[in-house]
Amino acid sequence: MPELRKDPIIGRWVIISTERGKRPSNFGKIEKLVSPKACPFCPGNESSTPQEIMAYRPDGSEANKAGWSLRVMSNKYPALIIEGELDREPKGIYDRMNGIGAHEVIIETPHHEYDLVDLPLQSIKDVLWAYRERYLDLQRDPRFKYILIFKNHGSAAGASVEHSHSQLIATPIIPKRVAEELIGAKKYYDYKERCIFCDIIRQEITDQDRVVCENDSYIAFQPYASRFPFETWLMPKAHICNYVDIDIDMHTELASILKEVLTRLKTGLANPSYNYILHTGPVGTEYRDFYHWHIEIIPKLTRVAGFEWGTGFYINPTRPEDGAKFLRELQIPGNTVSV
Amino acid sequence: MPELRKDPIIGRWVIISTERGKRPSNFGKIEKLVSPKACPFCPGNESSTPQEIMAYRPDGSEANKAGWSLRVMSNKYPALIIEGELDREPKGIYDRMNGIGAHEVIIETPHHEYDLVDLPLQSIKDVLWAYRERYLDLQRDPRFKYILIFKNHGSAAGASVEHSHSQLIATPIIPKRVAEELIGAKKYYDYKERCIFCDIIRQEITDQDRVVCENDSYIAFQPYASRFPFETWLMPKAHICNYVDIDIDMHTELASILKEVLTRLKTGLANPSYNYILHTGPVGTEYRDFYHWHIEIIPKLTRVAGFEWGTGFYINPTRPEDGAKFLRELQIPGNTVSV
Repeated sequence: MPELRKDPIIGRWVIISTERGKRPSNFGKIEKLVSPKACPFCPGNESSTPQEIMAYRPDGSEANKAGWSLRVMSNKYPALIIEGELDREPKGIYDRMNGIGAHEVIIETPHHEYDLVDLPLQSIKDVLWAYRERYLDLQRDPRFKYILIFKNHGSAAGASVEHSHSQLIATPIIPKRVAEELIGAKKYYDYKERCIFCDIIRQEITDQDRVVCENDSYIAFQPYASRFPFETWLMPKAHICNYVDIDIDMHTELASILKEVLTRLKTGLANPSYNYILHTGPVGTEYRDFYHWHIEIIPKLTRVAGFEWGTGFYINPTRPEDGAKFLRELQIPGNTVSV
Repeated sequence: MPELRKDPIIGRWVIISTERGKRPSNFGKIEKLVSPKACPFCPGNESSTPQEIMAYRPDGSEANKAGWSLRVMSNKYPALIIEGELDREPKGIYDRMNGIGAHEVIIETPHHEYDLVDLPLQSIKDVLWAYRERYLDLQRDPRFKYILIFKNHGSAAGASVEHSHSQLIATPIIPKRVAEELIGAKKYYDYKERCIFCDIIRQEITDQDRVVCENDSYIAFQPYASRFPFETWLMPKAHICNYVDIDIDMHTELASILKEVLTRLKTGLANPSYNYILHTGPVGTEYRDFYHWHIEIIPKLTRVAGFEWGTGFYINPTRPEDGAKFLRELQIPGNTVSV
């Protein structure tokens, strides 16, 4: 059973999950990405993964068999497990609870050789729609306070399987960074009676120099206090707290701008490893006025020195104005290239 | 001129320092460690670094020439610069100030081939004493709120020069993680009227199962909510807020336990890359009752997925109890091996 343990000083919860662990003698060896032949995410190998939770497949085709265009299942090595009670309890001066949660994998395409960015718009839209479906399902479980969706692309970003996929973790706590955003956004709202994210969008549209691209509903920009070179945020221009509240047309536009940003990053920076994290409001309605969902894309271009995550103090060698200009001015193929 | 920019949502300051930057076309290439022949930190190559700020060298020997046993100078590519005013100002809704600060390098030994752990106790003690001397000097500058000392060992930990060294960054802000510790420790003190770090030490001495080693004045343990496998904290058993307040005998004991912990990590985990960060109280006396200096050592054994630093939510595959037992039970050579 994985455990959630709380740092008594700063209140950060950590998952201790030995199911994913290595023996001490194996530390120091960074594993290779799984090669195509053994790929558990390829069609035909469904039996090497847990049962599917949902899939997009032709009507009447059989579950857990080839034929799907997108597939969601539990992570085979879950960081948190779905069965059980939280059982919050003290351990001396410390606090713990059972590692209850969901840990799912969204296989974005049956085609091993394509990355998300290579997929046709409709397939990217399917991925984004699948995120929404999983949110709607999981937020009904009262044990979960937050549903976190993220993607690791490339080994430098922590991906251990090459086949393009996203992950979802539902947790009984709100992750620290999101909690900080909520506190900061609430403080701003209390003072200004405006959403801080909406004000940031206004500022970015005025300044223009950190904007990478935009369409009717979304803006992609490199934030003023970027931690990393080419860190890029995607934000809906309208004030929307929760990701699940965007409609089907906004999904089309989101697929389009996500594909464009990823194409610009891939073209300009030689297919970098990257992570993106979908920041949405926690389960519940009390964040509606002041939180604003968005996606943070972090290309993995520099080695992050340990002191940076040990101190929360980042040194960024690239001005976001320079990074945004570079991506904005790139010549890229049209946005509708399809597989 | 480097800049300090503030994230408007969560209030984190970031250094934007293009002096250290690469052109976009060079991103994605991780540089190799500098090879011995070109090593700017080796004796005889003093002219390839900035002027020394202090050095331990025989009486009468010439500054910026070989002969030193330890040497401190400004970083050649400083993230912050010492000359100038802060000039805090708004930029639209954002906040910035000039990147004023100090960025120094402490060369721990003239011997290129030795790591800190290989040095005799007296040399390690000299390194720790040099930290103290630099603190005492820099904390007199009223522009600086915090003085951060850290070490990156090995390329996976972000070291760009192989020759064993530590770094110091003096900043006009308190780094976010330290600020969080201060807030958490203050809250605990207000409630319990005790130092939380002192209570943690009591708990660790009672439980014993996370202790790596200890001596009269220090304890080394893997924290209950460790973020990373084999994360190890070194803490003085007595309540001391600021690193500069330990006396010469405590420096001897600190050198001894630091050498022991690093030896256990090197022996047990095949010389891993690691970072350590010296957490001390900020400049000023108002933290005396509730803060407690310590060193956090983070071996770099697993790839940290971007979602972890993007969310502040860590998945640790190794229980600290298992990691501490492994290190504690290792057979290592005596503690007094010298070069």
